[in-house]
Amino acid sequence: MAVYTDVSFEELEALLRDYDVGQPLSFKGIAEGVENSNFYLQTDRGAFFLTLYEKRVSEADLPFFLGLMEHLAARGIACPQPIRRRDGGQWSTLNGRPAALVTFLNGLSLKRPDAVHCAAAGAALARMHAAGADFALARPNALGPEGWGELVAKTAEGADGIETGLRELIAGSHSEIVAQWPAQLPRGVIHADLFPDNVLFMNASVSGLIDFYFACNDAYAYDLAVMLNAWCFESDGGFNVTKSASLIGAYRRERELSAAEIAALPVLSAGAALRFLLTRLYDRLNHDPNALVRPKDPRDFSRRLRFHRRVKNAAEYGL
Amino acid sequence: MAVYTDVSFEELEALLRDYDVGQPLSFKGIAEGVENSNFYLQTDRGAFFLTLYEKRVSEADLPFFLGLMEHLAARGIACPQPIRRRDGGQWSTLNGRPAALVTFLNGLSLKRPDAVHCAAAGAALARMHAAGADFALARPNALGPEGWGELVAKTAEGADGIETGLRELIAGSHSEIVAQWPAQLPRGVIHADLFPDNVLFMNASVSGLIDFYFACNDAYAYDLAVMLNAWCFESDGGFNVTKSASLIGAYRRERELSAAEIAALPVLSAGAALRFLLTRLYDRLNHDPNALVRPKDPRDFSRRLRFHRRVKNAAEYGL
Repeated sequence: MAVYTDVSFEELEALLRDYDVGQPLSFKGIAEGVENSNFYLQTDRGAFFLTLYEKRVSEADLPFFLGLMEHLAARGIACPQPIRRRDGGQWSTLNGRPAALVTFLNGLSLKRPDAVHCAAAGAALARMHAAGADFALARPNALGPEGWGELVAKTAEGADGIETGLRELIAGSHSEIVAQWPAQLPRGVIHADLFPDNVLFMNASVSGLIDFYFACNDAYAYDLAVMLNAWCFESDGGFNVTKSASLIGAYRRERELSAAEIAALPVLSAGAALRFLLTRLYDRLNHDPNALVRPKDPRDFSRRLRFHRRVKNAAEYGL
Repeated sequence: MAVYTDVSFEELEALLRDYDVGQPLSFKGIAEGVENSNFYLQTDRGAFFLTLYEKRVSEADLPFFLGLMEHLAARGIACPQPIRRRDGGQWSTLNGRPAALVTFLNGLSLKRPDAVHCAAAGAALARMHAAGADFALARPNALGPEGWGELVAKTAEGADGIETGLRELIAGSHSEIVAQWPAQLPRGVIHADLFPDNVLFMNASVSGLIDFYFACNDAYAYDLAVMLNAWCFESDGGFNVTKSASLIGAYRRERELSAAEIAALPVLSAGAALRFLLTRLYDRLNHDPNALVRPKDPRDFSRRLRFHRRVKNAAEYGL
């Protein structure tokens, strides 16, 4: 949670000449997001969010990310709406970094969502899947099964220093999950990172989905598997089947799951747990002590991975 | 620039039950301030700033800091106005830390203020001095001459590792400045840290003074000396006498300086440079690599200290 690149008022003023958003009233760095530098901008015409993309987001992916938000917003999905430049451009360059201006969404993310929130978020995911179905661009999932092997190799040596037996858990899970990975599920644009951090609520209703910087094309049911990991475990590690039943049930009322998708949920969920375990482990092992972000604990996801590998069928998720 | 202590929505909701500020619409950690954790809160009734005081701000000083802002705001100074709890209390406890809610001020701080901004800020300082004159509480300046000796001793060993000759510069300056320090200047409540970061502008007008957590009782002219250091040096190290003349001239139109205050400006300015040099040097030498803040460069202030020690009289500041 940090601002990596500072933006002075003078730099902001120069930037805003290229946009039709009014005069700045307030401008604050936001301690949010581990990937980018984010700023809250209030003008006499509304509230906006300025993002400077740091090294983890490739400029080549911006037409996909920004185009997707524009596409979804045009179809009624509450997500940040990119503001185009006066010349029609989707982003600018500021302090050597690509920078985009989007609308600011009201709402608050929850640390401890309950089953009602899980249902609202599950339904929002299904609506996002439907709205994204006709989006023209595509982006492969860099953190799908094809990307795991490299992370498994790079984290093997340090894994047991984080948790005894972790190297073996990862190696065994990796080969098993890849071998069972389903090939033919319905697919399209997925969010791929829809944690509670990335869903804004007003009371019990979803007021916004944010942070589309892992969005890609992959199996829709994998997005649901990410959410089972992100929304349905308690802080003591226990899986809350009421929440998962609520989340999946609400998703299915918007978009029905096929028999193949349901059957694949355990391996997809184990794969999602492995994906977050690997990236958190890599970040922990390669943490720059000068970085302004504290790495998250990978062990939350080793526990979740073990849980999903014991699941025999999707009924255990409350279906 | 960081948020040290996280506040969940659920914790926010519980906190807000004790205040009459409406329903939360948005809540974001702000990457601002090296001392505390700050959050932007938008409710259906307005915009607020929530501060959790980390270890550097003592709870015993909160009646002074919050009382001062309340006092100044009641006298028309644009500064954050503390919101009292329903039970009249000035602050709450959140996650084990004292926490205060204040009004959010529009405006933007400038990285490169020009002479017009310096004048506006100088006049604002004088008005703050006048408005604070009848404030009932007092707080000694912990970072005045009595506090320097300890920092000189604690930084002596590491000083030359930061800049060759720094240890000698500090030791020599310290004894000389303390020996010449004026005892009888007009005094009252001062801000003591009025850097451009802490002054918000709307166009060329001051819309707010913020961050009163170094405020204390000391010589008014020392506050002006802090501003000469903070506002009147260019990024190449050069002193801009147009800016200082503009700043001091505007101050004097609101509150005239005595002959003794004018005569003391060089030593007060050297003292202010020494104070920021010492704290920055201490922070650099004792930097915790796990901290979420990058220490500022102390050498900006060794250059300024050398400059002020060469100043023969206040005419060199443009008076």
